[in-house]
Amino acid sequence: MDTILETINGPEDVKKLTIEQMEQLCEEIRAFLVKSVSVTGGHLASNLGTVELTVALHKIFDLPNDKIIWDVGHQSYTHKLLTGRREQFHTLRKKDGLSGFPRPKESVYDTFMAGHSSTSISAAIGICAANRLEHKNDHVIAVIGDGAFTGGMAYEALNNAGKNIDNLIVILNHNEMSISKNVGGFARYLASIRSRPRYFKMKKRVEKVLDHIPLVGKRLKMTMQSSKSMLKNMLYHSTFFEDFGFVYLGPVDGHDMPKLLNTLEGAKNYHKPVIIHLYTVKGKGYSFAEHNPGAFHGISQFDVDTGLPCSIQETCYSQVAGQVLNELAESNEKICAVTAAMKYGTGLQDFAHAHRDRFYDVGIAEQHAVTFCAGLASRGFIPVFAVYSSFLQRAYDQVIHDAAIEKQHIVLAVDRAGIVGEDGETHQGIFDVSFLTSIPGVTLYSPCGFEELECCLKRAVNQDTGVVAVRYPRGTQNKEIHWPAGFRDHLRLGSGSDVLLVSYGRLSEQVYLAREALRAEQIHVDLLKLTQLSPMSEDVPEICKQYSTVLFYEEGIKNGGIGQQLLLLLHEQGFRGAFHLRAIEDFVPQATVSESLADLKLDAASMISDAKALLADKK
Amino acid sequence: MDTILETINGPEDVKKLTIEQMEQLCEEIRAFLVKSVSVTGGHLASNLGTVELTVALHKIFDLPNDKIIWDVGHQSYTHKLLTGRREQFHTLRKKDGLSGFPRPKESVYDTFMAGHSSTSISAAIGICAANRLEHKNDHVIAVIGDGAFTGGMAYEALNNAGKNIDNLIVILNHNEMSISKNVGGFARYLASIRSRPRYFKMKKRVEKVLDHIPLVGKRLKMTMQSSKSMLKNMLYHSTFFEDFGFVYLGPVDGHDMPKLLNTLEGAKNYHKPVIIHLYTVKGKGYSFAEHNPGAFHGISQFDVDTGLPCSIQETCYSQVAGQVLNELAESNEKICAVTAAMKYGTGLQDFAHAHRDRFYDVGIAEQHAVTFCAGLASRGFIPVFAVYSSFLQRAYDQVIHDAAIEKQHIVLAVDRAGIVGEDGETHQGIFDVSFLTSIPGVTLYSPCGFEELECCLKRAVNQDTGVVAVRYPRGTQNKEIHWPAGFRDHLRLGSGSDVLLVSYGRLSEQVYLAREALRAEQIHVDLLKLTQLSPMSEDVPEICKQYSTVLFYEEGIKNGGIGQQLLLLLHEQGFRGAFHLRAIEDFVPQATVSESLADLKLDAASMISDAKALLADKK
Repeated sequence: MDTILETINGPEDVKKLTIEQMEQLCEEIRAFLVKSVSVTGGHLASNLGTVELTVALHKIFDLPNDKIIWDVGHQSYTHKLLTGRREQFHTLRKKDGLSGFPRPKESVYDTFMAGHSSTSISAAIGICAANRLEHKNDHVIAVIGDGAFTGGMAYEALNNAGKNIDNLIVILNHNEMSISKNVGGFARYLASIRSRPRYFKMKKRVEKVLDHIPLVGKRLKMTMQSSKSMLKNMLYHSTFFEDFGFVYLGPVDGHDMPKLLNTLEGAKNYHKPVIIHLYTVKGKGYSFAEHNPGAFHGISQFDVDTGLPCSIQETCYSQVAGQVLNELAESNEKICAVTAAMKYGTGLQDFAHAHRDRFYDVGIAEQHAVTFCAGLASRGFIPVFAVYSSFLQRAYDQVIHDAAIEKQHIVLAVDRAGIVGEDGETHQGIFDVSFLTSIPGVTLYSPCGFEELECCLKRAVNQDTGVVAVRYPRGTQNKEIHWPAGFRDHLRLGSGSDVLLVSYGRLSEQVYLAREALRAEQIHVDLLKLTQLSPMSEDVPEICKQYSTVLFYEEGIKNGGIGQQLLLLLHEQGFRGAFHLRAIEDFVPQATVSESLADLKLDAASMISDAKALLADKK
Repeated sequence: MDTILETINGPEDVKKLTIEQMEQLCEEIRAFLVKSVSVTGGHLASNLGTVELTVALHKIFDLPNDKIIWDVGHQSYTHKLLTGRREQFHTLRKKDGLSGFPRPKESVYDTFMAGHSSTSISAAIGICAANRLEHKNDHVIAVIGDGAFTGGMAYEALNNAGKNIDNLIVILNHNEMSISKNVGGFARYLASIRSRPRYFKMKKRVEKVLDHIPLVGKRLKMTMQSSKSMLKNMLYHSTFFEDFGFVYLGPVDGHDMPKLLNTLEGAKNYHKPVIIHLYTVKGKGYSFAEHNPGAFHGISQFDVDTGLPCSIQETCYSQVAGQVLNELAESNEKICAVTAAMKYGTGLQDFAHAHRDRFYDVGIAEQHAVTFCAGLASRGFIPVFAVYSSFLQRAYDQVIHDAAIEKQHIVLAVDRAGIVGEDGETHQGIFDVSFLTSIPGVTLYSPCGFEELECCLKRAVNQDTGVVAVRYPRGTQNKEIHWPAGFRDHLRLGSGSDVLLVSYGRLSEQVYLAREALRAEQIHVDLLKLTQLSPMSEDVPEICKQYSTVLFYEEGIKNGGIGQQLLLLLHEQGFRGAFHLRAIEDFVPQATVSESLADLKLDAASMISDAKALLADKK
């Protein structure tokens, strides 16, 4: 017999279900997700937490006229399952497959791009404003976690929601986790609501009593002359969201289908923005994920029965960075570490444990993180902000305004620099070289290999001044390649040939492999590996000038990249040879890193072809 | 006899004063500021609003051990007067003179760089964290307006203030104005506090009554069993700030010296972060400014007796842009206009009046603004976000993530692009070309002259797709130069000479003037003026290739600029002539625009010298 899930080909099929059937559907979805993600990898825990919510939303609202905006998008798998994409689930996060995030190009039910945090309410308000201008009464629902609420954009949006915005429903998915445990005053505030469930019942009862009792004791009565409405006001204004002009509904158990349906149905009836405060359990229904939601946030293939990963995780750059910073902090008590809700992702867990007083998790708040670092630096501390490249984009202005102008010595440990793979367009770390080198005085390193990462971090922390960034990729190093030990701002291998292959960071490995392969065919090219990208050593153009042809490979965006900068230097110094630049010119879709590098012609095989083609032309 | 002001050479002199003397000092400071700013120009209204506060802060706190962080810095003049900079006030905002903003290099009393909004609490928390690590008990005071509170960074910081941060005092300078009137739910919330002064008195009385009355009527008593503390909780949690873990003090009249002193003294005694909610009047004490604080926010020379500007303001690019958008919106009802608290600065006041339902002032919230625009665009509207170049830096990630990836058609009207003059480093619009052209698919125009601005805006709105930016400078056009009418993505003047001068935007005027001057000396060079910077017309490299020498002038940062991009194109197409690039390589300090262009060798005179030197070399 078919499962219910197999009968669901669109939201209209959800609408036909009874509550009992919906509850069964949720069970089936959980089983499907666990099984499917155990094979493809993906974001599991956050998706298991929002199964009931998603089913209920599709029951109560009328998509695609009503819109759901998933903040970040880590929780959109059930939505994809219910909107005709079940059959494609085995392609999740693969090249040309289903995205792990909402993608408007993928489905009419995916309203808005997601990937970065805290954007959903802003987008929803934009759509509400459009609906208003077109006199439409459709509902727009933003689903956002309490983690995403630590990002300032969410508040900017709340601040703009109160007036002239109807039919906006914000669903606060409160699971006390973003990727790590949430931090900050707002999280404590939410927790305080949660820890006093009677608070809201009591509030209602007090209001009721006040409505019905004309006399409440003599002195109290005196005090309350004309103050009943005032007291009610105080009561009503007892939550944060109401201060922003929202109707607050909740808290509601996000796994209780009847209550969910009631609340959502009720939320339709307000002519004001509504916030629904939902408690959910990250990883719900799969015990391994429930007990360790961090490990099951984003996960590779795993064994369903044991919850254990199928392959042993190799040491990655993030771990090395975390370890090096931890060791540096042992001997230098000025070093602090800062993360924007990525303690584990950036490998800082040991630092956090060993140097608790110098570790700061500021929430998903990259802007604050950089300026907070600048504040620390202004008093002589050496803060290291470990952050993914694509999320550092959020703090471009703060790096300029609060750190670089005054040459504050802050260190940016830029993780996930370059192609990141399965997360796709929104997460590629391809802009950091361009935007960081646009800022005067920034020192930028792009090491290749763990040992060089260590050297660069040490220099950045203990030797350099001003803003220093060390960028390093996702994943691991090629253990087959042995670069000479110690720090070098650049390294040349070979000399005397006509052709020089130049690159930096992880791509240096591809250049190395290409050169080796060409040598095996008796084709001799030299290699130049750049580590310090800015300021660039004067030797670099000097070396390049010795070649008639320079091939530059850049795992980053072309405009503003090092290739263009180097060409100008070369030109100014009289180089009139040929300079060929391969870099990235468009957003890079999801695929494995190897697939992307091949597509972009940034892999060793493409380099080999390039070199051969050039040499053939010369002949 | 000396005025009191003349006896103040540092904070220690303020500490000696009686309350009466301090009040007199405030009067003197106001007179000084009005007179001084009437000559130098500057930010007047916000400074007049914080005179008492600043005097009181210097009385109660112990600078430079205690620190004051001025948010934005528009209100730091009194602080400068009290910290030994009175004699330099005539140099305010002039080249090599006093900055209009706090500058650590200028004084030990200026703790932290400012210029952009909403950064102060983050910096203050950084300094508090440093103090804590060094076991210092010094106070850190962030002074921040309610306008700056519409920026998400302020909330990110609040969220990080509650725990483990002592001795932080946030002073909310509530004047209901940033530059335009403030907007949003938070402003309404603050206003609601203000509009019910009895609320807080009543709150105290209710608490008192509850403390003293064991029996308050039978039904109420039942309800309140064990709920007295709960009700108190509700009352205490009746303000937003307490939700974030702050002690809330206020509201206090910010012009009442005794109350101010009491409140500040009291604030020292908490071992938690404190927020002091102050009401102030922008422009206080100078009636013209009080009545029209917007006009006296940033002002040029004016007549003290009449409040009128000394010179007639020439039509500027902002006004033209506002007018064009207003007209475009007449005939196309899909066009919306968005500003981040800069309705007047970006010339949108007529649009706001004529198309009220399609005008959105989102507060100082550039991140939200862009994603809100993307939301509107996703439903077929054409939002135009008018924003200063240096403030758009805040939304770099949103342009990438929420607009460019999905090719949402939003228009960025990038005002104050290029050198802005007296505001200095923090406000120079020198990064936009670099960071916008790093983003795939962005169309970028840099018109020169009002007519071309109009053409570009029309194309951007009605013809182009995806993210389109039109950048234009502060100030006015050179009316002596008459460019041919109509849109051209590029324009060449002259042909057949050896040397081509290339530029874009406002700098095209300097190139024009240089070429004319050289012609008068019988030196012939050609001119290429670029309007569409990205994607660049294929004709542009074709034209350049016809010359043996190309001189490129760029009023923007060199790395990532059009010069480097064009050189690569030229090189790829076989150009082996000489390419000389002059662009900006460092932060640009305050000066007039002309002075800065001359210093940067981007003025006509430098271009003339360049051309002559090159031609001499060739001979």
